[in-house]
Amino acid sequence: MKIVILGGVAAGAKAAAKARRLLPDATIDLYTDDTHISYSACGLPYFIEGNFEDYRQLLVRLPEEFEKVNVHIHLKNRAVKIIPESKQVLVQDLITQNAYLVEYDKLIIATGARPVIPNIKNVNLPNIFTLRKIEDGIAIKEMVCKSKHGTIVGGGYIGMELLEALVKQNLKVTLVEYGPNVMNMFDDDMSILILEQLNSINNNRFEILTSELVTEFLGDINGINTVRTGTGKEFNTDFVILCAGVKPNVEIAKDAGIEIGITGAIKVNDKMETNIEDIYACGDCVEENLIISGTKIWMPLGSNANKEGRTAAINVCGGEDKFLGVLGSAVTRCLNLTMSMTGLTEKKASSIGYKPVSVTVTKNDKVGYMPNVNNITLKLTADYESGKLLGGQAVGAGDADKRINSLAAALLAGMSVEEFFNNDLTYAPPYSPTIDPLLNAAQILMTKIKPKEG
Amino acid sequence: MKIVILGGVAAGAKAAAKARRLLPDATIDLYTDDTHISYSACGLPYFIEGNFEDYRQLLVRLPEEFEKVNVHIHLKNRAVKIIPESKQVLVQDLITQNAYLVEYDKLIIATGARPVIPNIKNVNLPNIFTLRKIEDGIAIKEMVCKSKHGTIVGGGYIGMELLEALVKQNLKVTLVEYGPNVMNMFDDDMSILILEQLNSINNNRFEILTSELVTEFLGDINGINTVRTGTGKEFNTDFVILCAGVKPNVEIAKDAGIEIGITGAIKVNDKMETNIEDIYACGDCVEENLIISGTKIWMPLGSNANKEGRTAAINVCGGEDKFLGVLGSAVTRCLNLTMSMTGLTEKKASSIGYKPVSVTVTKNDKVGYMPNVNNITLKLTADYESGKLLGGQAVGAGDADKRINSLAAALLAGMSVEEFFNNDLTYAPPYSPTIDPLLNAAQILMTKIKPKEG
Repeated sequence: MKIVILGGVAAGAKAAAKARRLLPDATIDLYTDDTHISYSACGLPYFIEGNFEDYRQLLVRLPEEFEKVNVHIHLKNRAVKIIPESKQVLVQDLITQNAYLVEYDKLIIATGARPVIPNIKNVNLPNIFTLRKIEDGIAIKEMVCKSKHGTIVGGGYIGMELLEALVKQNLKVTLVEYGPNVMNMFDDDMSILILEQLNSINNNRFEILTSELVTEFLGDINGINTVRTGTGKEFNTDFVILCAGVKPNVEIAKDAGIEIGITGAIKVNDKMETNIEDIYACGDCVEENLIISGTKIWMPLGSNANKEGRTAAINVCGGEDKFLGVLGSAVTRCLNLTMSMTGLTEKKASSIGYKPVSVTVTKNDKVGYMPNVNNITLKLTADYESGKLLGGQAVGAGDADKRINSLAAALLAGMSVEEFFNNDLTYAPPYSPTIDPLLNAAQILMTKIKPKEG
Repeated sequence: MKIVILGGVAAGAKAAAKARRLLPDATIDLYTDDTHISYSACGLPYFIEGNFEDYRQLLVRLPEEFEKVNVHIHLKNRAVKIIPESKQVLVQDLITQNAYLVEYDKLIIATGARPVIPNIKNVNLPNIFTLRKIEDGIAIKEMVCKSKHGTIVGGGYIGMELLEALVKQNLKVTLVEYGPNVMNMFDDDMSILILEQLNSINNNRFEILTSELVTEFLGDINGINTVRTGTGKEFNTDFVILCAGVKPNVEIAKDAGIEIGITGAIKVNDKMETNIEDIYACGDCVEENLIISGTKIWMPLGSNANKEGRTAAINVCGGEDKFLGVLGSAVTRCLNLTMSMTGLTEKKASSIGYKPVSVTVTKNDKVGYMPNVNNITLKLTADYESGKLLGGQAVGAGDADKRINSLAAALLAGMSVEEFFNNDLTYAPPYSPTIDPLLNAAQILMTKIKPKEG
């Protein structure tokens, strides 16, 4: 059995390792245009922040470790074409430029995603970065260490994490977001709250500009030095990091006739099979099933990539495994603020046909007399018609993440708010108030659901 | 409508407040032998620890606040007999010693629990305390402030919390536990781990003696000065706190013909009704339904008491509400160690007829390169025959509590391990590893379940 894997960050590396354990005799080859495999890309902001000095701490498994178990890692070798008819992949060696054909019995596409480059004049000036790969992180960290002012374009997850990183490295930071709010995957009321809370801890260390489009970078051969926005603002900066989102690397799949889903990522079934026999896909290049609604979502996260890589490998190796999908759970931190969500937001729920009702509570995360008590604001959303829980969002300096994770299994089970109100959460003064904010919110939300007839 | 409530710490106070909101015109009288009502008894160890100076921070609602809304609070007035036939309660004023009869249309028993006093010679010497009421906390704190060495008898929740409190107040502490392990509501392997971890952070500030029975206290009119154990050990101490467990205050109920459950606490249905019409009970004096197994359990916790008080009040006032029961969720902290559990332990599951299988994993609570990463040890238990999740226990310096709360809704939903493995928990390096320890454990546990036929 010849297993060929394209891509090796999270899903590809996981698939290779799992396939090796399942089929000791299979030939396994992994091709990547990257210079590293099996790394925690999610850790790059924390490397830049200075939480650890050696980037190699981000490497989960080294190529040598794979080679030892007879998994062949081909770094800087890019797959350029898949030929399903002959079960071959055309690969190009990025150093020698030589192209060559490899054969597969089973192919796993784990080509990941890449940063979106926004359409800004002079976007190719030196010292304008994106953050995706190990080299990006190293280059940005070097730049950070010799700079006084950094600019971040985009206020999503990565933008938030880099804001924290640069502030912690004592840089002055300007974050420019074209939308009216940062973190716009949250409902607007929560996004507004996030911006307010960030500004309240600001202390002149950073500035967040919203509803501002960066239109032009100015600089010279030494690099960017000025940012210009659509409203005519101009400010100096030592460097820029573009955090304008990511898009899935699907071109090679699409070109081979592999079906692309509604989200723009590769469509797979719950066995991680594409529409072409013996071709599987997993990780940031595929879309997911959103369990709550049965709709499609694209959640390019390391946790999902790992699970999908595992499922793909099991099925490739003749076993049977299913990845049912995701709940849309995510969390990030910016300075002392935790932002966490699971399931559907109110706006997302509306857009796919639910009639959502929500309750937002702001409560202590512990009993009020404990010394490290902090607020969290929790928004809980349910379907008016059925009473079914749809999702939750939590923001605050307190333990917001715990509440979102406490909710996840309830969404997985398809619980109603009424059922969830029976949940028994742990209680002790250092961990939560007597009645957890989740149950406060659920109690009020029950009163907003359509009354049962009869 | 005349509503009479006996007891006013958590359940009684909650019931009074809720009943007032529901029935503005009802007469509500609350009788208690205590000198305070509506307080966070769970906060007393944190008061003793010095987290806050004024014990009044533990008071949730003052008697004056109740009186303002026409709820009559009778402090130091003890109910001594219930006469269901005439719907009366005999109450004794503890100051004047006068007894008098009060009439009720609906009676709510919320008499709580009291500390068990172990059978130790000279247990009534001065400076031997139990911790239950506000006065206990004040007296212990005064003693702590003028002492160098304290002794705790019993290594359960309160014993652990007081160990932390005394150590933080810079006392030398000896904790004596008659069983082979502390925290014996956990499975033995987890209890052993707790003891190991506590000893590893000990640093000569405290000593935990296990399998030691305290047989005698020695002292004089000035107070205890020496503790003697069954194995002949003798040591000096300035004071002793007895943490040998609690028992429900059910005597007055039993005497009135109210049925006592298998756990020794008052038996109620899901409306918090006792077997006698118009008499309800809630809080630490009643037993709970353990949702997972349908068996009875006694979980005297503030969180449960609050919910039960609410349900009792709604039903008393003519509404309809059900308290379905508990999952057995609990958490406590001792120094840097979090100990948390939900559902059934392996030993408890065996004792009620399940065939439990378990997996224990020790993992980072965050990604390993994060600066504040810590271990947690997580034990996940399921039923071999059905694959149904039965419970979880987590111990460690890391975020153990989050994992237990993530599990609770799954137990509430009656999920199998296989279903739970599809859970989508949030992921970011400051919050969890790529694959959460809960899912690591679930993955291994799936392999231990009885294979499905066919």
